Amino acid sequence: MITAGFREVGGEGVEREKKLMEVVRHYQMKMIGPNCMGVINTDPQYRMNASFSPTEPYVGNVAFVSQSGALGVAVLEMCKALRLGFSIFVSEGNKADLTDSDFLEYLEQHEPTRVITLYQESIEDTGRFRKIATRISRKKPIIALKAGRSESGAKAASSHTGALASSDLATDAFFKQCGILRVDSIEELFELSLGFSNQPIPRGNRLAVLTNAGGPAILATDAIEKYGLKMASLSDKTQNKLRTFLPEEAAVHNPVDMIASANEETYRNALETVLKDDRVDAVMVIIVRPPINTTPRMIAEGFRGIVQKPGQKPVFVVLMAQADESCGLEVFQELRLPVYAYPESAARSISAMLNYQQWKKKPAGKTAKVSLDKGAFRHIFAESAAEGREYLSSADVQQILKTYGFPLPFSQIVQSADEAIAIYRELKKPLVLKIESEEIVHKSDIGGVRISLKGEREIRNGFDEIMANALKVTTADRISGVLVQEMVSGGREVALGMKRDPNYGPMIMFGMGGIFIEVLKDVSFRIAPVTDRDAREMIESIRAFPVLQGVRGEAGVHLETIVDAIQRLSQLALDWPQILEMDLNPFMVSPEADNCKIVDAFFAGIFVSKKYRLPVVLINV
Amino acid sequence: MITAGFREVGGEGVEREKKLMEVVRHYQMKMIGPNCMGVINTDPQYRMNASFSPTEPYVGNVAFVSQSGALGVAVLEMCKALRLGFSIFVSEGNKADLTDSDFLEYLEQHEPTRVITLYQESIEDTGRFRKIATRISRKKPIIALKAGRSESGAKAASSHTGALASSDLATDAFFKQCGILRVDSIEELFELSLGFSNQPIPRGNRLAVLTNAGGPAILATDAIEKYGLKMASLSDKTQNKLRTFLPEEAAVHNPVDMIASANEETYRNALETVLKDDRVDAVMVIIVRPPINTTPRMIAEGFRGIVQKPGQKPVFVVLMAQADESCGLEVFQELRLPVYAYPESAARSISAMLNYQQWKKKPAGKTAKVSLDKGAFRHIFAESAAEGREYLSSADVQQILKTYGFPLPFSQIVQSADEAIAIYRELKKPLVLKIESEEIVHKSDIGGVRISLKGEREIRNGFDEIMANALKVTTADRISGVLVQEMVSGGREVALGMKRDPNYGPMIMFGMGGIFIEVLKDVSFRIAPVTDRDAREMIESIRAFPVLQGVRGEAGVHLETIVDAIQRLSQLALDWPQILEMDLNPFMVSPEADNCKIVDAFFAGIFVSKKYRLPVVLINV
Repeated sequence: MITAGFREVGGEGVEREKKLMEVVRHYQMKMIGPNCMGVINTDPQYRMNASFSPTEPYVGNVAFVSQSGALGVAVLEMCKALRLGFSIFVSEGNKADLTDSDFLEYLEQHEPTRVITLYQESIEDTGRFRKIATRISRKKPIIALKAGRSESGAKAASSHTGALASSDLATDAFFKQCGILRVDSIEELFELSLGFSNQPIPRGNRLAVLTNAGGPAILATDAIEKYGLKMASLSDKTQNKLRTFLPEEAAVHNPVDMIASANEETYRNALETVLKDDRVDAVMVIIVRPPINTTPRMIAEGFRGIVQKPGQKPVFVVLMAQADESCGLEVFQELRLPVYAYPESAARSISAMLNYQQWKKKPAGKTAKVSLDKGAFRHIFAESAAEGREYLSSADVQQILKTYGFPLPFSQIVQSADEAIAIYRELKKPLVLKIESEEIVHKSDIGGVRISLKGEREIRNGFDEIMANALKVTTADRISGVLVQEMVSGGREVALGMKRDPNYGPMIMFGMGGIFIEVLKDVSFRIAPVTDRDAREMIESIRAFPVLQGVRGEAGVHLETIVDAIQRLSQLALDWPQILEMDLNPFMVSPEADNCKIVDAFFAGIFVSKKYRLPVVLINV
Repeated sequence: MITAGFREVGGEGVEREKKLMEVVRHYQMKMIGPNCMGVINTDPQYRMNASFSPTEPYVGNVAFVSQSGALGVAVLEMCKALRLGFSIFVSEGNKADLTDSDFLEYLEQHEPTRVITLYQESIEDTGRFRKIATRISRKKPIIALKAGRSESGAKAASSHTGALASSDLATDAFFKQCGILRVDSIEELFELSLGFSNQPIPRGNRLAVLTNAGGPAILATDAIEKYGLKMASLSDKTQNKLRTFLPEEAAVHNPVDMIASANEETYRNALETVLKDDRVDAVMVIIVRPPINTTPRMIAEGFRGIVQKPGQKPVFVVLMAQADESCGLEVFQELRLPVYAYPESAARSISAMLNYQQWKKKPAGKTAKVSLDKGAFRHIFAESAAEGREYLSSADVQQILKTYGFPLPFSQIVQSADEAIAIYRELKKPLVLKIESEEIVHKSDIGGVRISLKGEREIRNGFDEIMANALKVTTADRISGVLVQEMVSGGREVALGMKRDPNYGPMIMFGMGGIFIEVLKDVSFRIAPVTDRDAREMIESIRAFPVLQGVRGEAGVHLETIVDAIQRLSQLALDWPQILEMDLNPFMVSPEADNCKIVDAFFAGIFVSKKYRLPVVLINV
């Protein structure tokens, strides 16, 4: 349904789309669009072009699903120059009936499609999409360009499509969990597609570089290291063999600089030689237009019979020349050799292929589930709603955390200093006292917290001071008491958090506390449900992770306790949609599991009404 | 001198180059090369092509100086497709006589050259280069691609050119101080050149986007924010005017989506309208191949008379189509409109232009100089050499720091606990005790440090423990005593450092101490001499800078004290080339200037022999 004038124009267009969908449903039809550019299927059996793209794409194995019709058509045109072939092109339009998830399911079974690429401005039914994408990306790589990264971009996206904007961090986390390769630009989408579509994934990250010019080889070496790949160290046998046919001025170590005199025979022999080396996982062939001797086309012809053997290692070509007849792009295309303009593009593409492979190899994560009686909490939410609260009281938070099995320090609300002293005698540990009042959210700011109290006098004075401070900002009837906690010290401070994203659901956050979160923004996110694998990746992906592993000979903290707590938080967030935000901070972690305790927590939600209000600040409550 | 077979082949080639240079000097000639690809001057007055580049570049205002001949030739060829014109091309070869600095000086005066681009694998005489580049980059932008970023890349670079590899961080710092725009890839070099060469620098960062397709506009919006630019908020007048000629379905806010029906007249009118808006500093025009109506060439023709007026705001074109006849690239070229393939490329280029402008606007920094009698220290280095030391003693370090005016806590070496106690009585402040022995470098590791000692008993016990611990690892005659220092506490911990780079000279480092340096690598570098402006930029550029400014209502630390100390360190490093490494860490800084003190320092050098040995680790002494 190419026709426009539906939901995208608002007003009566919305009504028109509703009516259209009634017809579609009534006759049990499937519809693409409306407001789209159509569909192309290049399969020689069908050769269907039901689009108004002026470009007829090359037949290939890349499927392209685009939420923007015009962009899709531009991509088809630009890919013609890059010799990238397509199996299917779908312009999704308003996604009134069929959405990304449907197209993914179709492409999963679609034999000619080996690579799936998406341009998205919105994602519908993220739960279904996640399930499908996670399954399919284990079989075929999914490369996605999600537009609307920036706030203004998201605004432009929503006014363009009427789709709801989502936070970009949530999209990042979501794609990671789906195994989707997220790219930043159309250019990167092209690069990755070229690699995945034409060559097998390298077995490892060791690259050999063949070149007829020194400068580009140095740039290639820089790019290879930048993208986490390695320069292969060629065996003596390989170097000796190269020596037999390369001129004296050539370099036979990696990068192999065959110098400007290299012709198609030199390239052929050198490629054959390095491909045989066990220390080489893939080859980057750089061609600067040869001054005399030969042409890129002749070099390509020379590769015939060497590449495309079964089980062959992948080869990537960097052709630094203006595309003309003598470049023989169609020969490279026929040999399924992807041609890049810059060494950086080739390296980035190879790196993405390896990352995908690594993701596929890791076993899928598992979701742990605490079994508990949720009924026990219903009254908390009911009462909070009745009282018109926006935050849960500490006591309620504590009860919920305890039931969900989070590690907590001993904790009890008291009404007098004597009760606090009695607890001290029992525990024989330093205490923390905190004021407990729904009126006081930032307790430290008003002098409502005292820590490390030892001995009766310190505890009594602490209790009195806190009460006095609290009475300066509220009245006695709004104070429910003083919270007495076992003092937890030593170890490292980390923080867990949750924010409910309107599109993706609960985003779980992990980071180190204090300035690591507030200033350095050194945090990681995943969308619930969070598996054990997700949780481990969250912990490992913050920059300060080595601190948790232990620096300067210190023992590392007990990581599995954090992994466990992250999963419990994920379940808690899924169980209670009333909670919009949670902060478990600080979470003190030590090398011993039973010395890891959540010291403070804060739950916010709209318990008053069902109206959804999203807090602006996530991490700095 | 195009001929090869000189220094680059080693052995007798080196001799050959020496002889060549004798001839050159004898006849007071100037020589480019040897081992290069030649020189091109496109000036219609000369039209000199003394190179074997098969491509004749377009006449333009970009000078390109390339250390790699083959890469240079490839660049000329690729730029033909991008319609980027050159004034001068120089292939430098071995730089036996003329080097980058000479070419820069020539290009400074070269009227047709407005933009200077460099591809470098090595930089000779960095002192001279810095002076010249800093001067010229205030007149003409210098864009440099320095290859050999990675360790392997540097190895490839040195084997390729015989040039000495330099640490990449030093290059980064050096270029910043020279005002050189460093790019990461050939592609970025092209992009920036296109922008600088064709359009004036925008007055501000507010962009208007005109488009005939929604998707690319969202990508443009994302890219604009990513690169620190802003989407202009169009005035009502502009929006009303746009409304008069755009169809109802078009969007008249920014991005202005003129929809697929836009023809050359629509583009022309819209461009004219947004250029008049005071809230717009520059315009990005996106063209996806129009389905019917018009062609990119006709759109370009329509822009005639609108662009290229004196004082006109800059316009950047994003043409998402396969380059063919109908694209009219030569019309865009004639109108001096840079054409990019992707919105990201245009945004990155505009952002670089603004950064350059900002750099130019800032006043040049000043170098403060402490006047002192250097003679007083000669004996320290002489004695250290005589004793065969690799590190200076604490006492010597202290004397040097004191003379150079660094802020130090009270400090004295004592031989007995009684002396330490006497100091305590005098100062009335808690003390730190540290073992003092040239045998013991990492004092804390062996229990040679005690802090926060108050009262006679604590001090006596501390002294005895330190001595006992020291005697476990060395003998009494190797212990010169115990250093007694005033305890400095509170405030924030920062660290200063210096490492001598073999190519650039002293690299000055700044960062926050501990894991900020060791784990997060949150540090900044500049090359000595460091100006006040450099020092301020160093402090402001670490990620944790907001912590020093004060978070959560805390007062910020006294930044000018750090600025001052950085400059003193820079002078000290330049004064004494014997010192290879310095560490002033921790440097405790507080809101009050007189509460900022350097608590520990460590100087390493090779005082034994003149042989230059570079330590491997910079920041973790």
